This record gives sequence, structure tokens and C-alpha cells, in this order.
Amino acid sequence: MPVENPYYTADVHGDFQLADIGDLPLEEGATLRGCQLAYQTLGTLNAARDNAVLIPTWYSGNHGVMRDTYVGAGRAIDPAEHFVVLVNQIGSGLGTSPHTLAGPYGRARFPRVTIGDDVVAQDRLLREVLGVEELALVFGGSMGAQQTYEWAVRFPDRVKRAAPLAGTARIYQHCVIFAQTLVDALRSDPGYADGWYGDSADVRGGLQRHAGLFALHVLSNEFWTGEHWRALGFSSAQDFVVGFLEAYFQPMDAGDLLSQAWTWQHGDVSRHTGGDLAAALGRITAKTFVMPISSDRFFPPEDCAAEQALIPDSELRVIEDVHGHASLFGLSEAYVEQVDKALRDLLGTEV
Amino acid sequence: MPVENPYYTADVHGDFQLADIGDLPLEEGATLRGCQLAYQTLGTLNAARDNAVLIPTWYSGNHGVMRDTYVGAGRAIDPAEHFVVLVNQIGSGLGTSPHTLAGPYGRARFPRVTIGDDVVAQDRLLREVLGVEELALVFGGSMGAQQTYEWAVRFPDRVKRAAPLAGTARIYQHCVIFAQTLVDALRSDPGYADGWYGDSADVRGGLQRHAGLFALHVLSNEFWTGEHWRALGFSSAQDFVVGFLEAYFQPMDAGDLLSQAWTWQHGDVSRHTGGDLAAALGRITAKTFVMPISSDRFFPPEDCAAEQALIPDSELRVIEDVHGHASLFGLSEAYVEQVDKALRDLLGTEV
Repeated sequence: MPVENPYYTADVHGDFQLADIGDLPLEEGATLRGCQLAYQTLGTLNAARDNAVLIPTWYSGNHGVMRDTYVGAGRAIDPAEHFVVLVNQIGSGLGTSPHTLAGPYGRARFPRVTIGDDVVAQDRLLREVLGVEELALVFGGSMGAQQTYEWAVRFPDRVKRAAPLAGTARIYQHCVIFAQTLVDALRSDPGYADGWYGDSADVRGGLQRHAGLFALHVLSNEFWTGEHWRALGFSSAQDFVVGFLEAYFQPMDAGDLLSQAWTWQHGDVSRHTGGDLAAALGRITAKTFVMPISSDRFFPPEDCAAEQALIPDSELRVIEDVHGHASLFGLSEAYVEQVDKALRDLLGTEV
Repeated sequence: MPVENPYYTADVHGDFQLADIGDLPLEEGATLRGCQLAYQTLGTLNAARDNAVLIPTWYSGNHGVMRDTYVGAGRAIDPAEHFVVLVNQIGSGLGTSPHTLAGPYGRARFPRVTIGDDVVAQDRLLREVLGVEELALVFGGSMGAQQTYEWAVRFPDRVKRAAPLAGTARIYQHCVIFAQTLVDALRSDPGYADGWYGDSADVRGGLQRHAGLFALHVLSNEFWTGEHWRALGFSSAQDFVVGFLEAYFQPMDAGDLLSQAWTWQHGDVSRHTGGDLAAALGRITAKTFVMPISSDRFFPPEDCAAEQALIPDSELRVIEDVHGHASLFGLSEAYVEQVDKALRDLLGTEV
């Protein structure tokens, strides 16, 4: 039986729609029958059908944070110009997810979903529901960058521009290990009960430790040493951990996070080319801006730069910010301006 | 009642002696009555009594790893030249520690021990048991570096040279947060039972997660991305996590680790100067080589360099190695050679 969790509602994240995209056979072997994607569109598809921008989501994120942080009037991605499609990942808590799914694949039995599965599902949504064949831009951060790369490699003819932000085309071992500490923190909570907890809040101890792990790795040393939490309105480092990170994760569902963690750990475009990353990235025809964040420990600039060198028509645009991977939340104006500048340059490129 | 744990014996770590240094009032308020320090000496105190080298230990470490990694014939620290005193921290599992202590302060009630308490205890050992008044060198890594700084600030007249390796004089917030994830991993194991487990192995789940956290942070991204575990004889990243890190931590005692974690989180020489780090470090008269490891995430070179700039007669000697904080185990020959070179230069300096 699904669990009720008020966090995963339009009241919290703003309006979204649900599309039934049919039965989705997954790369790892199961089938999600009657798979539902939760999405929001802003703006209008133009007559030429060439102004669509796809924005997938990241671990623990959803369309709301992407909309509020990266889309708006006067921004690089502007609903007045673009048909913006914000789409939540399978397993994210919005749309088909462990905590919402009834039946044999529900809850703890939720099947493994790959980044490729997400992209195939999104492709169906775009073509069959929204009438979009071509994407002017795919733009996503973190696991959204993994989906961006997957789009550009899997469907090169349909992606004109790609902007992977703070993420890599292949997952590297340090991220696998980090995500595993998240998995272990949640699963080891006795309240998790092998995934059959009665209420998301039964896993609150695990969720608290999970937030503590993010405190460790999602920020930068300089953030802590320089006490940059002060500028964000917190009174101490501990106040930031509780008031920001614990507040963020505490209402979430452990099963949903675990589903996404597995997806994150296994993202790899070289699945298409027998493990040959250069061959996979060589398939990309989109004009691509690779956008690492300078202080990011998950996806450090050097890893991103090494991949960018393998992409034919690409540029490296490092975004300078002190907030580590958490910069993605748009914690400084300078960050938002740099991202917008890069996206404007990219969208302004004829392809 | 103490728990039995065969890991904390001379069979595993080599010979050591126990010295009763009497009742030790602690900075945080309790008193360890009949406090015992576990130590090993190598070499002989010369007639001038000026060849003593003190080597304290790090989190989870002991005299054995310091002896095997940093002391030996033909090494910079050579028992043929130096009277080497390897001393285990209070709470480390050797000497007075949570798992060994009977009485009201035993086990889960073990009191908080500061770096200053360790140094005061070591001072008693040196003067009252070993007849050492002056130290030619204090050398320690990680929490051993914290003790090295504490020695140099607290007893400037008695420390001729100091070599803090991969550690800082004051703990910074990212280390506090990391250590807290270790604390949470151990305490959240139901087998921990609020510290009253019957056997150290009851906390094996927590110890496994604890090892996983080290996998995340004690190595460098380059270690994982470049698959440097191969050169260490492991067949995969996971094989390294289990075969090296889990193997290392699994036999340990959670209570001992928790005691040391608290000590680590609260090391700060500026306790002597009302929080003024510059004033505290300005007291140091020892010739000091500050030795960060290039890829160290706990104690990154920039934090160490900022402290070095505050120490009057000091030099910064960055040790280049790919193994992050785990370089301390001497995982590459080049590392060992660089450390020895620096220590030779320092010991060769007239002071």
C-alpha cells in the first residue's frame, strides 16, 4: 500500500500535471506499468516547434526548484520565448515512485530505474503528449546533467543544445561511494523496516543522518571555514545544518531517495558503447556547454573538463561559487548571473 | 564492566608498556583516576638528554602504525640516534579507554578528553617516568598533529622542533561535520545500545558504515578516478573499501572511536588565548615545519598554510601524494621519502 506524504504535492512545489506514458520496460529488467511522469510546462510551443527547452531534475529535487531557480521573465530561459518542460524523474516522489506505487513493484520492491529509462520516458512524454520532436536545449544540474548527457548521446538528432551543469556523463567512484553512505544511512535506521515503514517520518533518524552527510560533502571547505552560512541568514554552522539541510530532507520519503540514489550511482552514457566513454561522447552533435561549479566536490571541474574534451562541439564554462554542489540552489546572485550568461550564450548560438 | 577486545593488544600492535600517571583532572571537568598511558620507547636517552622525539597517535591509530611507518634504522627518526617515545592517546583503546575502564567513568560514561588533556598526561609520562624534560622533536599526523601543536603552544620552552603532519592547530567546521557523521553512524546502530553493548562486534553494522564514510573522505577523487587502489593490490574499488577500510575498522571498539572523535572535534590551541589563534600560534618558539598533504580533504593545504603564516619560525612543506588523508599510512614510497626529507631537514636545523 502506498504511504501518504504531504511533501510531494502541488501545495509544496507548485502545479504539475501527470501524464500516463504507458508501460515502460526498464533497462534492468522490470516493467513499470502505466508509468506516470509529473511535469510542468511554461510558455507555448511555437509554430516552428523549435523553441522547446527540457529541464529534468536532480536527486531529491523536482520541477519546483528548477522553475524557481532557473526559469523566469527576463531570464535566459524565459517562458515568453521558450516552451519550457520541467519533468520530474521517475522515483523522485512526484509521478511513479516507491512511496506512491501500489502493486507488486511498490515501495521496497520498486525496480531499479536508470538514467536511460528516465530519458526514454521523457521522450515519450515530449513526442506523444506534448508534440515536441526537437529540443532547442536540454539543461539540467547534477542528476539532471546526467539526463542531459543521456539525451545528447541517445538522441543526437533531436537535441540542438545541451547544458549539463554540475554533473558528469559517467558516474565516478567517489560519487558512488558518497551515494552509498546515503543508502546506508537510510537503510540502517530500524524505522526503515526493510522499506516497509508505515509513514515516511518513521525513518526520521536516517533522514537526519542523510542530511548530515550532505553537510559534509555538498558544501565546500571554504563555505564552512569562511562562515558563508552567515550570509544565508543562519546563526551558526549547526543552525545551517538543521535549519537548511535537515529542514530540506526531513519531509522526504526514504524509499524515493533510495530509488534515486541507485539511479545516480549507475548513470553512464558509455552503456551505449560497451564502456567506451570517448565513443559515446563523440556521438553528441548538440552544441554543448559543460558547466562545472568551481567548488563542487561531487563533480569537480577536472572530471567535467576531461569529458568536455571528448565532446566535438563543446565549451567548458566553469561557474565560480563558494557553495560547492549546493550552489545549484542559486545561493548567490553571482552564481545565477553566471549560469544565465552561459545559457544566453548557448541559446544565442546558431546550430 | 569492561569489554574484551583482542584488537587492542601487543599481539596486534607490538610491545608497549603501561604507565600509571596518577589522577588526571580533565579540562571538561571529570577526573580519570589512575590514568594509564600506553607507550613504547625505542633507542636510548643520551647523556645530554636532548635526543628525545615524541610521537603521539591519530584517530583510530596507535604506536604500532607510527613506529612501522615513520621510525626505523636509516630513517629520519632513527632509534640509533633518537630516544623515540610513541604514546597512545587516552581513549585510543590502548591505555585508559572506554572499553577498558571499570567503574563509574567506564564505557558509555567515559568523560570527554581534550587534546590538552592528552598533552598534560604525556608531559607527566615524559618527566616523571622517562626523565625527559626537553623534546628535540614532536611529530604527529592528523590528531597527532593537533597534539603536536598543543605541545608547541602549551610548553614552548620544552619543544625544540615541531612537525605537525596533515593536521591543524584548530579544528575547522568541515572536520567537525565529518567526525559527526562518524559519531552518528556508530551511535545509530541498534547494537550500540547507548554504549552498553556486550561485545565490540555488536556494533559491526555501525563500524561498517563508519568505514564507508572514510572511503568517501579519507581518499581523494583522483585516487578513485585514477583507480590507484590497483597499485595497492586491490581488484576493484569495492575490494579496497572492504579489504582495506572495513578490515581496518571492523575489529575496533565503537566507544573508543567515539571518545577520540569528540577529542578530534574539539582540538583548538586558541583555548589558551580566548579564541585568538594568532596569539596562540605566536607563542610557539619551536622551529616548526607545517606539513600538509596535497590531496588531503580533512586538513587541506590552504588551511595549514594559513596557520603556518602565524607561526614565527616556521616553514610550509607540502607533501605531494594522491592518497588523500590516507597517505598517512605510507601508501607510496615517494610519500615516505618526502616526509623523511622534511624531518631530516628539520632535525638538522640548529635551534
